[in-house]
Amino acid sequence: MKVLITGGGGFIGAALVRLLHARGTLGGRAIDRLVALDQRFPPAVAGLPGIATIAGDLGDADVQGAIAELAPDVCFHLAAVPGGAAEADPALSRRVNLDATLDLFDTLAGSGAARDGQPPVVVYASTIAVYGSPLPDPVAPSTPMRPPMVYGAHKLACEILLADFTRRGLLDGRSLRLPGIVARPRAPSGLVSAFMSEALHALSAGEPFESPVGPAATAWWMSARRCAQNLVHAAVMDPGSDSQRAWPLPVLRLSMAELVAALSQVHGVDGGRLVRYAPQPAVEAIFGRYPVLDDRAPRALGLRDDGTPEALVRRALDDGFQGPDAAAGWG
Amino acid sequence: MKVLITGGGGFIGAALVRLLHARGTLGGRAIDRLVALDQRFPPAVAGLPGIATIAGDLGDADVQGAIAELAPDVCFHLAAVPGGAAEADPALSRRVNLDATLDLFDTLAGSGAARDGQPPVVVYASTIAVYGSPLPDPVAPSTPMRPPMVYGAHKLACEILLADFTRRGLLDGRSLRLPGIVARPRAPSGLVSAFMSEALHALSAGEPFESPVGPAATAWWMSARRCAQNLVHAAVMDPGSDSQRAWPLPVLRLSMAELVAALSQVHGVDGGRLVRYAPQPAVEAIFGRYPVLDDRAPRALGLRDDGTPEALVRRALDDGFQGPDAAAGWG
Repeated sequence: MKVLITGGGGFIGAALVRLLHARGTLGGRAIDRLVALDQRFPPAVAGLPGIATIAGDLGDADVQGAIAELAPDVCFHLAAVPGGAAEADPALSRRVNLDATLDLFDTLAGSGAARDGQPPVVVYASTIAVYGSPLPDPVAPSTPMRPPMVYGAHKLACEILLADFTRRGLLDGRSLRLPGIVARPRAPSGLVSAFMSEALHALSAGEPFESPVGPAATAWWMSARRCAQNLVHAAVMDPGSDSQRAWPLPVLRLSMAELVAALSQVHGVDGGRLVRYAPQPAVEAIFGRYPVLDDRAPRALGLRDDGTPEALVRRALDDGFQGPDAAAGWG
Repeated sequence: MKVLITGGGGFIGAALVRLLHARGTLGGRAIDRLVALDQRFPPAVAGLPGIATIAGDLGDADVQGAIAELAPDVCFHLAAVPGGAAEADPALSRRVNLDATLDLFDTLAGSGAARDGQPPVVVYASTIAVYGSPLPDPVAPSTPMRPPMVYGAHKLACEILLADFTRRGLLDGRSLRLPGIVARPRAPSGLVSAFMSEALHALSAGEPFESPVGPAATAWWMSARRCAQNLVHAAVMDPGSDSQRAWPLPVLRLSMAELVAALSQVHGVDGGRLVRYAPQPAVEAIFGRYPVLDDRAPRALGLRDDGTPEALVRRALDDGFQGPDAAAGWG
């Protein structure tokens, strides 16, 4: 089978490429062609044996043509202009996050028709930013959507349109609303949420960490590897009968104090000494009051959180996909 | 002030053009320019003194240029590929109902910036087809959206994106989810819902009517004039704080028997003799089980239904906007 990962050079995309490469199969079928699409690729992706890459912009006709020619059985669509950049340039967000994404759906739907009408599976990386900011309490299937940024608005529109392609039998869409994922590389990203990854990097290295949210501040946590595993599971799970075809991921809802305790235990450091709490009200308002998530529906589909705070902490900083257990299952 | 009505040649658009023409004001300000945009116009619109028209396709650059030059203070956006035609040609629906609509929002937002940043008001004609088919019971603000046709999916996407333009301060959007509106002209339309208008035409003329739904079948009813009045009100009302900026219209929920009784009383006919019930399960499933609508939010904003079944019946077949009362208020 042929698998395409757009955004395959990004933080989550690269983890997904490496997981699929290590597995070699999807839904019990061998992956014959594994193709990553992005504007550029890190060595960890480009250097994998047997990986094909398409370098370019999803909005380019040449790139869409290459996708049509590939006619993938499964497409993981992660390529996007991220939140802050989208807000700074809504026209760019429309071009990539909306127009080019709909072009991708059209291209895949057309290539599916050429394959005896078997609709390609599309796993779409949506975002919890479809709900609102701060997040409404609780977040449940009946929570009205109020995306607070152009990024979330475009993602929500694409969820709806992917569900419509699915209803029409042209695609088999599954949208996952991703939370913030850790641990991103330590390089400056400009993201306000970067402190969530920095907490993991700093404490694991025994370095001091200044938290912009207090010890009781709650957030949703997931490791990149668990996120990649969920994306893989989404491609092969029975999606059930809900025609919305969009779910949040089950998450660990942890206070900063709980995260620090787990980091202290796993890495044998004294979190009480290393962490200084300097809560900033603006940061706490958005990243410190994540509510309870009603994630019964995605759990019933087999999607999973990291299990325990300790497992989250270990998995978030473990860069390896070498072991057969880690590659094949939920390790 | 300058007012633009896209789809101003259509069934509801023409009623809106004539209402605004008869009023001459909007929100207490004189309408200096009243411009209707459509591919063609009925004599009732084209013949009105002082009306300007733009004939063309909303997706054409020339038409968007004319809108930018006009820089309307208020735009009623009704132009659309209707449901059945959109389902038959999803690419056309994407071009008109999504891409050209977003181009319109961009054009209006740009012209707003040229007018000292005062955002143009956009009243967007959305649809109850955003909810699902059959309609979920009840329909309330927390009802998850499951548009059952490409038409509703594109409308819902545009609601979300209009709300985002509003959040960014570029437009002042107000989306109204219109129900089926009566009484459409008697010409064959191919719409399954045409029986709702035909019931009004037939009984008012003392002609027999075969109903494809039973006497207990419930539907949501609104006259074209009341719909036009609601669109006008939506342009000037205080929209409150809900960032979704989208509401269903309050409706009369009537059984077919209640409608027939009102028609019999208003027109002095014997509905019991003229109407033959021949329920078709497929029609009843979609058009005969309209649930209770929680319309408290739009009612609180001053939006209104037709009041009584008798008023609905009278208003739906009264083509006049001559009287000063009818033009100025909710007559």
